[in-house]
Amino acid sequence: MAQFMDHGMKDITADQLMQAHQADLAVEREEGVRFEKAWADPSSGTVYCLSAAPSAEAVQRIHARAGHRADEVHPVPLAT
Amino acid sequence: MAQFMDHGMKDITADQLMQAHQADLAVEREEGVRFEKAWADPSSGTVYCLSAAPSAEAVQRIHARAGHRADEVHPVPLAT
Repeated sequence: MAQFMDHGMKDITADQLMQAHQADLAVEREEGVRFEKAWADPSSGTVYCLSAAPSAEAVQRIHARAGHRADEVHPVPLAT
Repeated sequence: MAQFMDHGMKDITADQLMQAHQADLAVEREEGVRFEKAWADPSSGTVYCLSAAPSAEAVQRIHARAGHRADEVHPVPLAT
């Protein structure tokens, strides 16, 4: 398991954002992903998600299954 | 004070990344910014920084003074 950060721009409201995050959590185990934290800017619709996962592809598959692909998913082996 | 996330793509090594973060920390107080956490993918050079700050502009000014402007700085009033 490694740590990943993804981000995407989705023109959604705060409520839709939390629903999207719940949709991720509902299926994350099926790809061995654990979303640890999410941050969002509802004014621009930008979402950041920090996860522990076997691969960036697994993270993206969960987002895709939940209906909202990330623009980018990056491994973040370095953290302060 | 609010919370902000910024990200940028910089083609730098792991060592340069940590030096860049130290450069931020060295001057953050001058704009009332506190960098809480940073994550980086040295393979793509992508850096994410979470901060508490008075404004997105203050975050950007610190990055600029430290020599590495962020591509985007977003307030993240929503977090899980």
